[in-house]
Amino acid sequence: MQIQFLGTGAGMPSKGRNVSSLALKLLEERGTIWLFDCGEATQHLVLHTTIKPRKIDKIFITHLHGDHIFGLPGFLGSRSFLGGDGPLTIYGPKGIEEWILLTFKITGTHLSYPIRFVEVNEGIIFEDEQFIVTAMLLEHVVPSYGYRIEQKQQKGTLLMDKAVALGVPKGPLLGKLKNGEDIVLEDGTVVRSIDVTEEPKKGFTVTILGDTMYSDNSVRLSEEADVLIHESTFDASLEEGAAAYGHSTNLIAAKVAQKARVKNLLLNHISARYLSEDASKMVHEVRKIIPNAYIVRDLDEFTWLHGELKQSLKK
Amino acid sequence: MQIQFLGTGAGMPSKGRNVSSLALKLLEERGTIWLFDCGEATQHLVLHTTIKPRKIDKIFITHLHGDHIFGLPGFLGSRSFLGGDGPLTIYGPKGIEEWILLTFKITGTHLSYPIRFVEVNEGIIFEDEQFIVTAMLLEHVVPSYGYRIEQKQQKGTLLMDKAVALGVPKGPLLGKLKNGEDIVLEDGTVVRSIDVTEEPKKGFTVTILGDTMYSDNSVRLSEEADVLIHESTFDASLEEGAAAYGHSTNLIAAKVAQKARVKNLLLNHISARYLSEDASKMVHEVRKIIPNAYIVRDLDEFTWLHGELKQSLKK
Repeated sequence: MQIQFLGTGAGMPSKGRNVSSLALKLLEERGTIWLFDCGEATQHLVLHTTIKPRKIDKIFITHLHGDHIFGLPGFLGSRSFLGGDGPLTIYGPKGIEEWILLTFKITGTHLSYPIRFVEVNEGIIFEDEQFIVTAMLLEHVVPSYGYRIEQKQQKGTLLMDKAVALGVPKGPLLGKLKNGEDIVLEDGTVVRSIDVTEEPKKGFTVTILGDTMYSDNSVRLSEEADVLIHESTFDASLEEGAAAYGHSTNLIAAKVAQKARVKNLLLNHISARYLSEDASKMVHEVRKIIPNAYIVRDLDEFTWLHGELKQSLKK
Repeated sequence: MQIQFLGTGAGMPSKGRNVSSLALKLLEERGTIWLFDCGEATQHLVLHTTIKPRKIDKIFITHLHGDHIFGLPGFLGSRSFLGGDGPLTIYGPKGIEEWILLTFKITGTHLSYPIRFVEVNEGIIFEDEQFIVTAMLLEHVVPSYGYRIEQKQQKGTLLMDKAVALGVPKGPLLGKLKNGEDIVLEDGTVVRSIDVTEEPKKGFTVTILGDTMYSDNSVRLSEEADVLIHESTFDASLEEGAAAYGHSTNLIAAKVAQKARVKNLLLNHISARYLSEDASKMVHEVRKIIPNAYIVRDLDEFTWLHGELKQSLKK
């Protein structure tokens, strides 16, 4: 799993930061990428990555402010133009479907793939054998969702040599053992799955929040998450103003992460007023509370490997 | 007058060219800037220019394809955020108003300035003392307009010394002379305007076309224009394919310019398939027909000075 940021600014693009979007790359896990928000020029940032638009099969929208969705029509059109023909699901608050459909009608846009719209409400919005995604409402000036993405426990790898040594023949019995079932061989020997498979692996949990001021739901969604991506529009000196606009400071984000016992904290949605040295100060304050904290920049990528989050080296 | 290109590509953004937009800077003439089309990330390109969004008081949309309008909602929002409070007029085909109003409703966008929408049909769409703008339909897969922007003849400068020498007192009589009226002094002397003013100056004509294949209306709109901005999506080898998609080649653009006796030809809307060396070849072919021809790039700027168009030096 990798997380790559396609826009880390707030409200408007600046020379240093584009408006909001990030990619959750699940290429090893399921061969696809999930996009969270799609601000204007998301597709422009994608041009500077290895992301292939056709690999993106789910887009989650946190809320309907322009700096989080104005890149969606262009991205969807280009995905079609670039040969994407697999279906795409868009999860978002009520209104996104109406807007996209009118936009396509007005512009005469026809896609080469079907879009399914899922109107997000609180609760589990997606679940399959591998992943479960839960949404909860945060506290902002419009309905804004946070998403908790949990990878389910993964079955342990089958220890083939050990199974063969116990007399298990090649074929469907091996599959049963791998799936956790105990089996009986023709000679009556019982082979227990637990004896020929590695320990199940714990999945990761990533929590990605939309714009929000401090919210108890932020804490609930982030409970023991491996990674929390939290907005940090302002610095701690502007806490009052931040709340008035439904936004957070760096220290609000740290407080949420601390309460929820989060392991890694990535701060995005940074106001253009903050220069590079201000960001250093902001992250320094946060690291006193959450040591593994970063203020992320456009195109930054983080990799989840052996239970740890590491910043990928720049190419 | 200056013309600055904010996006010179076709259909989709590429690393080299953004989608369509250009600014007609009329800062000396009227203190404002007119924008023609507003593809996604137009506001991002503006960040790399001296253009202040609040100076833009008219936006002309040629047609409703996404690569010409998807930057409009973001631009309008940022113009408000950046302190723009002067009214803005948007000229465009039927549909643009419905789309912008729904987009603002869905995203909860409130602007600090009023927008007036003018639904474009063929004919004169704007006229004041200085300028006249005429629209005509071109030939594309959806209704696509071309715009002819004519600066009216400018009154000659008043030769103050000469007027004073003839005994004209300071005051309103000077204004009358400047405005072309002859006057009678208190002693009965007649002073003719023509004797105390310079020759009237011819205004410039710029024609800006939307996406189109060859069209007689392109020629009509460009008649003796000082500058024609014409799309050149493909090179001459792809003429048939270009027409099938309602687009032009470099040589179609040259033919229009030649028929209309245009003085300067700027080619934009270049497919991403063409690299820098291809563009050199395309412009070389065109210059055999129209010597003052350019294939423009993003952020290129041209200045109209003393009746000639010159490419501005890069900063």
